[in-house]
Amino acid sequence: MTYFNKDYHPPGTEPGTLVERDGAATAATLRITGIGSGKTIDKQIATPEECREYLQPPGIWIQVHGKPDPALLQRLGEVLELHPLAMEDVLNAGQRPKIDVFDDHLFVIMNLPVMNDGRISVYQVSLFCGQHYLVSLHEAPGDLFSRVHKRLLESNGRFGARGTDYLLYALIDVVIDTAFPVLERFGEELEELETELLDAPSRKTLVTIHRTRRELVMLRRMLWPQREVVNSLLRDEHPLIDAGTYIYLRDCYDHAVQIIELLETYRDTLTSMLDVYISSISNRTNDIMRVLTIIATIFIPLTFVVGVYGMNFGNNSHSPWAMPELNWYYGYPLIWAVMIAVAIGLLWYFRRKKWL
Amino acid sequence: MTYFNKDYHPPGTEPGTLVERDGAATAATLRITGIGSGKTIDKQIATPEECREYLQPPGIWIQVHGKPDPALLQRLGEVLELHPLAMEDVLNAGQRPKIDVFDDHLFVIMNLPVMNDGRISVYQVSLFCGQHYLVSLHEAPGDLFSRVHKRLLESNGRFGARGTDYLLYALIDVVIDTAFPVLERFGEELEELETELLDAPSRKTLVTIHRTRRELVMLRRMLWPQREVVNSLLRDEHPLIDAGTYIYLRDCYDHAVQIIELLETYRDTLTSMLDVYISSISNRTNDIMRVLTIIATIFIPLTFVVGVYGMNFGNNSHSPWAMPELNWYYGYPLIWAVMIAVAIGLLWYFRRKKWL
Amino acid sequence: MTYFNKDYHPPGTEPGTLVERDGAATAATLRITGIGSGKTIDKQIATPEECREYLQPPGIWIQVHGKPDPALLQRLGEVLELHPLAMEDVLNAGQRPKIDVFDDHLFVIMNLPVMNDGRISVYQVSLFCGQHYLVSLHEAPGDLFSRVHKRLLESNGRFGARGTDYLLYALIDVVIDTAFPVLERFGEELEELETELLDAPSRKTLVTIHRTRRELVMLRRMLWPQREVVNSLLRDEHPLIDAGTYIYLRDCYDHAVQIIELLETYRDTLTSMLDVYISSISNRTNDIMRVLTIIATIFIPLTFVVGVYGMNFGNNSHSPWAMPELNWYYGYPLIWAVMIAVAIGLLWYFRRKKWL
Amino acid sequence: MTYFNKDYHPPGTEPGTLVERDGAATAATLRITGIGSGKTIDKQIATPEECREYLQPPGIWIQVHGKPDPALLQRLGEVLELHPLAMEDVLNAGQRPKIDVFDDHLFVIMNLPVMNDGRISVYQVSLFCGQHYLVSLHEAPGDLFSRVHKRLLESNGRFGARGTDYLLYALIDVVIDTAFPVLERFGEELEELETELLDAPSRKTLVTIHRTRRELVMLRRMLWPQREVVNSLLRDEHPLIDAGTYIYLRDCYDHAVQIIELLETYRDTLTSMLDVYISSISNRTNDIMRVLTIIATIFIPLTFVVGVYGMNFGNNSHSPWAMPELNWYYGYPLIWAVMIAVAIGLLWYFRRKKWL
Amino acid sequence: MTYFNKDYHPPGTEPGTLVERDGAATAATLRITGIGSGKTIDKQIATPEECREYLQPPGIWIQVHGKPDPALLQRLGEVLELHPLAMEDVLNAGQRPKIDVFDDHLFVIMNLPVMNDGRISVYQVSLFCGQHYLVSLHEAPGDLFSRVHKRLLESNGRFGARGTDYLLYALIDVVIDTAFPVLERFGEELEELETELLDAPSRKTLVTIHRTRRELVMLRRMLWPQREVVNSLLRDEHPLIDAGTYIYLRDCYDHAVQIIELLETYRDTLTSMLDVYISSISNRTNDIMRVLTIIATIFIPLTFVVGVYGMNFGNNSHSPWAMPELNWYYGYPLIWAVMIAVAIGLLWYFRRKKWL
Repeated sequence: MTYFNKDYHPPGTEPGTLVERDGAATAATLRITGIGSGKTIDKQIATPEECREYLQPPGIWIQVHGKPDPALLQRLGEVLELHPLAMEDVLNAGQRPKIDVFDDHLFVIMNLPVMNDGRISVYQVSLFCGQHYLVSLHEAPGDLFSRVHKRLLESNGRFGARGTDYLLYALIDVVIDTAFPVLERFGEELEELETELLDAPSRKTLVTIHRTRRELVMLRRMLWPQREVVNSLLRDEHPLIDAGTYIYLRDCYDHAVQIIELLETYRDTLTSMLDVYISSISNRTNDIMRVLTIIATIFIPLTFVVGVYGMNFGNNSHSPWAMPELNWYYGYPLIWAVMIAVAIGLLWYFRRKKWL
Repeated sequence: MTYFNKDYHPPGTEPGTLVERDGAATAATLRITGIGSGKTIDKQIATPEECREYLQPPGIWIQVHGKPDPALLQRLGEVLELHPLAMEDVLNAGQRPKIDVFDDHLFVIMNLPVMNDGRISVYQVSLFCGQHYLVSLHEAPGDLFSRVHKRLLESNGRFGARGTDYLLYALIDVVIDTAFPVLERFGEELEELETELLDAPSRKTLVTIHRTRRELVMLRRMLWPQREVVNSLLRDEHPLIDAGTYIYLRDCYDHAVQIIELLETYRDTLTSMLDVYISSISNRTNDIMRVLTIIATIFIPLTFVVGVYGMNFGNNSHSPWAMPELNWYYGYPLIWAVMIAVAIGLLWYFRRKKWL
Repeated sequence: MTYFNKDYHPPGTEPGTLVERDGAATAATLRITGIGSGKTIDKQIATPEECREYLQPPGIWIQVHGKPDPALLQRLGEVLELHPLAMEDVLNAGQRPKIDVFDDHLFVIMNLPVMNDGRISVYQVSLFCGQHYLVSLHEAPGDLFSRVHKRLLESNGRFGARGTDYLLYALIDVVIDTAFPVLERFGEELEELETELLDAPSRKTLVTIHRTRRELVMLRRMLWPQREVVNSLLRDEHPLIDAGTYIYLRDCYDHAVQIIELLETYRDTLTSMLDVYISSISNRTNDIMRVLTIIATIFIPLTFVVGVYGMNFGNNSHSPWAMPELNWYYGYPLIWAVMIAVAIGLLWYFRRKKWL
Repeated sequence: MTYFNKDYHPPGTEPGTLVERDGAATAATLRITGIGSGKTIDKQIATPEECREYLQPPGIWIQVHGKPDPALLQRLGEVLELHPLAMEDVLNAGQRPKIDVFDDHLFVIMNLPVMNDGRISVYQVSLFCGQHYLVSLHEAPGDLFSRVHKRLLESNGRFGARGTDYLLYALIDVVIDTAFPVLERFGEELEELETELLDAPSRKTLVTIHRTRRELVMLRRMLWPQREVVNSLLRDEHPLIDAGTYIYLRDCYDHAVQIIELLETYRDTLTSMLDVYISSISNRTNDIMRVLTIIATIFIPLTFVVGVYGMNFGNNSHSPWAMPELNWYYGYPLIWAVMIAVAIGLLWYFRRKKWL
Repeated sequence: MTYFNKDYHPPGTEPGTLVERDGAATAATLRITGIGSGKTIDKQIATPEECREYLQPPGIWIQVHGKPDPALLQRLGEVLELHPLAMEDVLNAGQRPKIDVFDDHLFVIMNLPVMNDGRISVYQVSLFCGQHYLVSLHEAPGDLFSRVHKRLLESNGRFGARGTDYLLYALIDVVIDTAFPVLERFGEELEELETELLDAPSRKTLVTIHRTRRELVMLRRMLWPQREVVNSLLRDEHPLIDAGTYIYLRDCYDHAVQIIELLETYRDTLTSMLDVYISSISNRTNDIMRVLTIIATIFIPLTFVVGVYGMNFGNNSHSPWAMPELNWYYGYPLIWAVMIAVAIGLLWYFRRKKWL
C-alpha cells in the first residue's frame, strides 16, 4: 500500500474520459444472475449487450470481476445508461467511498480491505443500483460475493423479491464486514507487538510499530467515508431504497461505525506504543550507563592508587620523602585495605542511590 | 480485554443467522417477575414459551442470565416477536451500545464494565422493552440486577405501576452506574501510579502506565456510545417512554456524560504521565552520567600524572633530561600537591557548573 | 483534589435516596433573607418549616451553608416541593455542573474552585430558583455570598424588585467569577515555573509541571459544563427568567467562556513545558557528556603513551630493539612534546566541532 | 504579555461598577469628527457633554484615546445612554472580543496586537455604534485610526454618507489588519529560528521556541473570537448594518479567518520544531558519544596491553614463566605490532558500523 | 514557500485600492476566446476595452496570464463592472480560496500548487464568472488551461453551449486536479524518506522530515478552503450555475476532499516519522553506549589488576608482605588466568543481559 494510490487523468482532461491504464486490463468476466423466483438465469456472458433483454422485472445482478478494459466499460455504460463520470470513477481506482444519486439509479463506491501474507491491500468495489439491475464491479482476488450469490440462488425467490435495494445492502454488508477479519488480524498483531515491546523491544519492534501505524492511518482514510455512504442511504430516503431495507442498513451502519472506532483505538494505541518504545530504549540506555558508571567509578580511583605506587620515585632512595610507603613493612596489605575500603564505600554509595 | 473482542459471522452470512459460538453456551437461566401490584409472579422458568401467558398488563420482566444457546434465543424471539437481527446482536457479543427502535418495542445494547482482580472485563447487556414485557440478557457474573429485583418486589406495585419504561430506565441506570466503582478503582490506581512515577519510577511503572492507558482507551470506546443511547431515549420521544420517566433518564444521561469525561481526564493524565516518565528516566541518566563524569574527569588526569612518573626514563640516568623530578628531594610530595590542586580545581569547576 | 471525587450510591439504589455520607454532616446553618423592599426579614432559622410563611411575593433567599444531614434536606425538599432526584444530587457532591428544568423551578449545580495554600479544591454549589424563593446550598469555607447579601440588604428593594432570577444570576456570577483569582494565581505560578524551567530545571520542576497540569485538567473537567449551563439559561427562554436578566447572563457567559479558554491555554502551555523540560535535560546530559568526552579523549591517548614507557622492556638491555627511546638523550622531553602536540591537536579538533 | 492579563472586580461586586484601576488613569483625549459632507466638525473636546449637540444626522465619530478615568466613562455613558455593563467592560481591559447587541446600538470589543521591540502586546479596542454616533476607545500607542480619520475628512462626505456602520467596518478592518504586519514579523522570526534550529541549535534556540510558542498560543486565544464577532455582524442582520456594508465585512471576515489559520500553522510548526530540537540534541549527544566511544574503545585495550608489560614480574627472574616476552629480542616491536593490529581492527569495525 | 506569503496594504488603506506591488508588474497577456459554436473568436488582445463587443451571448472567455499592472486591472474591472474589492484581491496575491457572490457574477479564488525542482510554490488563480463572460487571471508558469482551451475550440460549440458555468467548473477542476501530481510526488518522497528513516537515519533525514512537514502544513492551509468553495457552489444554488453542472461539481468536490484527506494522512505520517527518528537515534546511542560499556567494563578491572603488579612494593624486598606474588613460580600465568576468568565472566554477564 503506497502513500499515493489513486489513478487520475492529467488535469484538464475531459470528464468522463475512459483511457487504458498502465497496468493494462485483464480479461474481466461478466456474470448475470436473475433475482426473480423460480428458474432464474445464472450464467457468464461475453458482451454487455446480452444484459439488455433482462432489464425488466424481476431484474438481474451483473457481476463484473477483474480489471475491465475501457471499451467494455463504455459499452456497459451505454446499455444501462450510466453516466460517463461514474464510469471514469470505476476505471480510475483509488476513489474515496461515496454515493452519487442519479435520476434513476444510485452509484456507490466502497473500499474493500484484504489482508494477504500480513500485508494489507485495498480494492475498490463499485456498485450501480437501478430499478431492475444491480451491477457490481471489483478486482479483488477470490470470489468476494459467493455467499450472497449462493443465498440468492437458494432462497427460491424470497431474496430477490426484496428487490435490488436489498441486494445492494447485502453487497455493501459483505464489503463492510470484510474489514472485521482484517481488524481481528490487526488486533492479534497489536497483542504480539505489545508483548514484544514490553518484554524485549528491538529495532524490529520500531519498524513494525511504524509500518502498522502507517497501514492503519491509510486504512482509516479509505474506510472512514463508508460510514457516511451508509448514513446517506439511511437518511436521504432515496426512492430506490425500500423502507423495509432500512433496518438492515442500520445494522450495516453500526458495523461501519464500529470499524472506524476500532481503527481509531488501534491508532491511538500505536501512538502510545511509540512513546513506550522511546521510554524502553531510554531505560535500557540507563541500565547500560549504570553498569558502566559503577564499574568505572569503582576502578578508576583504584587504578589511580596503584598507579601512584607504580611511580619510580622510590627507586632512587636519596630522599626520605620519596615514597616511604613502599618500604613500610605492611605497606602492600595496607594499600589493599585502603582500596577495598574505597570499593566498599562506593558500592555502599551506589546502593544508597538505588543503582544496585 | 483483547484489542479485538467482537464476535462476528463470516462476511456474507445471512443477516439474523444464529449460530453456536466457540465458547459454547452454558445453561442460561430464565426468570420471570411480574411488575404488577399485589401477589405477583416471580419464578425461574424452563422454556421461553412459559412467558406467553403473562404478556398482558401489567406485564413481566424476563431475566436471561448466562450464555444462552442459539435455539433458546430463537424460541424467545419467536414468543416475543423480536427481530432476528436483534437476536443476532444478542448472540454475537462485543456490539457497540446502541438503541434500535422497532414498531412495538425498543432494543437497547449497553456495555457493563466489571473489575476483577484489578483487570477489567466488559459484558454486553441486551434489553428489549415492549408494552408488557422487558427482557434483560447478560452474562456478567454475580446478580447484577438484584437490587432492582428487590425494589420491584418490595415496592408493593408502586414500582411496576410506572410501566416497563421505568424498569428499562432502572436497568440502564444500574449498567451505567456500575462504571462508577470501576472508575473509582482506576482513580486510586492512578494516584498510586503517580506517586510511584514521581518517587521511584521503574520499568514496572512504564508497563503499568501502558496497560492502564490501553484499558482506558478501550473502555472509552465501549462506553462512549452509551451517552448517545440515553440521549436518544430522551430526545426522540419514543411512544413507549412515558414523559414522567424523562427526569430519571436525564439523571442517567448526566452520569453517562460524567463517566465519559472522567475517562477522558484519566486518559489525558496517563498520556502526560508517559512524558513525565521519559523525563524521569532522562533525569536519572543525567544523574548517573554526572557521577561518572565527575569521577572520571578528576581521576583521568591524575592517572596520567602518575603514569608519567611510572615511565622508565629515569632508570637509566645517562641524561640530565631524563626525569630529573624523580631525584628532587621534595619530588614526591610535590607531585601529590600538584595532583591535589588539580582535583580541587576540578571540584571547584563542577560546583560552579552546579553538578555537585 | 483526587482523580475520582464523586459521591455515589451503590448501583441499583432507588433514585432519590438520601443517605448519610461517610464524612458525616456538620451542623449546617439556614439563613433566610427577604428580597422585598422596606424592612425585610434577614435571620438564621432552625428548621426548614419556618420558611413556609415567606413563600409568597416578594419572596425569600434561603442560604444553607455547611454539610446538611439528609433529614434536613428531606424536610427542606418537602417544604419547597423539590424533586428527590435533585435533593440526591445536592447530597452526593461531585456532580457535573448542570441545569434541570422542573415545572415550577430551576435546579442549577455549579462548581466553585477555591485555592488554599497553593492547593486547589472544588466545592459544589446547588441553587434552586422558584417564583418566590431561591435556595443556595454549599459547603465552601468563608462567606461566599456576603457581597451579594450586603447588596441585597442595602439596595433598598431595588435588587429584590428584579426578582429571584436576578438573584440567581448574581449567585451564578459570584461562582463563575471566583475562578478569576484562582486562574490569576495559576498564571503567576506558570510564570514562576517557566522562569525556573528555562533557568535551572530540576526534578522539582518536573513534579510541579505534572501536578499543575493535573490540577488544570481536572479543573477544566469541572468548569467546562458551566458554560453550557449559562448558555441554556440564555437560550432556552425559561419562563422564570426575565428578559431584562439576559444581558447580565450574557456577561456571565462571556466570563465562563474566558475561563475555559484560559484553562485551555494554560494546559497547552504546560504540555509544551514538559517538552521543553525533556529538551533541557537532554541539553544538560549533552553538556556533561561533552566535558567527559573532552577530558577522556585528551587523556586516554596520553595515558597510553606514558604506559608504553612504563613497560619493562628496557630494563633488560639485551636487545637494541628494547625501547631504545628510554636511552635517548632527549627522550623524556621528546615524549612530552609528542603528548602536548596530541593534546593541542585534540583541543583544536574539539574547537572545530564547536564542543569548546 | 503575562499568562493572566484580565482586569476584574472582586466576585460579587455589583455589575456595572466603574472603579479606578491600579495603573491609574492617564489623561485620555476626546476627539469628535463629523461624518457629514461639506464643512464638518473635527476637534478635541474636554467633556463628553460637548458631544450632545452633534447626536443627530449626519452623526459624529468620538475617539477616546488613552486610559480614561471612571468618572469620564460614566459621563460618556450617560450622554450616549450606554449600558453600565458595557462601560465596565471598557474599563476592565483584557476582555474577549465580543459583540453585544443593545436596542439602539452595538457594542464591539476587539483585540489589537502590537509588536514592539520584538515583544508583543495586545490592546483592547472598544467600539460603540449607534444611529448617529460611533465611539472608539483604546489605549494603544500611536495614532491607530489616522488613515481612516484622513479618509473621512478628505472624502468630501462620500465616506460619511455610508453611515456609522461603514465607519464601524473601517475601524474593525484596521484592527484586524494590524495583525498582518505582526504575523509577517512572526513569520520572519520563524524562518530565522528554523535556520538556527537546523544549523546550530543551542539552548537559546529552545528558549526562543518556547517563548514564541507561548506568545502565539496567547495571541490565538485573544484573536480567535474576532472571527465570530465579524461573522455575527454578517449573519445576524442587525438593523444598524446596511446591506451595502456586507461585502466589506465579508472581506474583513476573510482576513480574520486567514489570521487564525496563520496562527494555527505557526503554532503547529513550533510544536514540530520542539521535536526537531530534541532530535537535534539527541543527534549531538550521539556524535559526542561516538567520538568518546571510538577513542576509549581503541585505547583502553592498548593501555591494558602496555600495563601488562609494566608489571614487575620480570624483574625477579627466578622463573621462566615470569614474562619471558620482556627478554625476547623482538619483544618490543612485536608488542607494537600487536597493538597496531588491535587498533586497525577496531577502526575497521567502527567503519563497518558506520561510526566513522 | 515562506511562512508568511500574503500581500497586504497598510491597515487603514481604503478598500479596493489598487497599488503597484514590489515585484513590479510584467507584461500580462490578454486572450479572448468565444464560447459559441461555429467560427468563434480566439485571439490575443491589447486592451480590456476590446472585450466589450463580445459581452453578449454566447459569451467569451478572457484569459489574463502574468502579473498585470494595477491600471490594466482597473480598466478590466470597469469594462466588466467588477467590484474594486475583488480586483484588490486579484492584485494582492496570497488570498485564501473563497467564493464571493455578487449580484450578476461570481468571484472565485483558488490556489494552484506547483512543484518545481522538488520545491513547492503556490499560485493564486482568480476567476470571475458572469452570464456572458468568464475571466481567469493567474501568474503560474506554463499554459495551465491549454487542455481546456483546446477542448473548447475543438468541441464545435458543444462545450460552449453548456454556458460559462461549465467553463468555470472546467477551470476549477484543472486547478484542483493539479494537486494530484504534486501529492503523488510527495507520496514518493515519503516512501523514500521512510526507507531512509528505517534503514540509515541521518541528520539530513531530520531536516527533510521537517521541511516536508512544513510544506504540507502550509499546503494544507492553502488548499483546505477549496473544499468549502466547491461545496458552496453545490449547496447555495447560485442562479448562474445550471443544475446540469452540479454532477460535475460533485466530482470536483470529491477530488477536493480526497486531496485534503491525503494531506492529513501525509502530515500525520510525518509527525509519526519524527518520533521514529528520535527512537532511531536513541537506539543508536544505545548501541554505541553498549560497545563502550562492554569494552570499558572488561578492560577497566583488568587494567587495575596489571596496575597492581606494576607497583614498586616488590622492588624493595625487605618484607614478606611486599607483593610475594611477583616471586611465585607460576605468578605470571596465574595472573593471566585470573584476568581471562574475569573477562569471560563479564562476557557471560553481558550475554545474559542480551547486550551481546
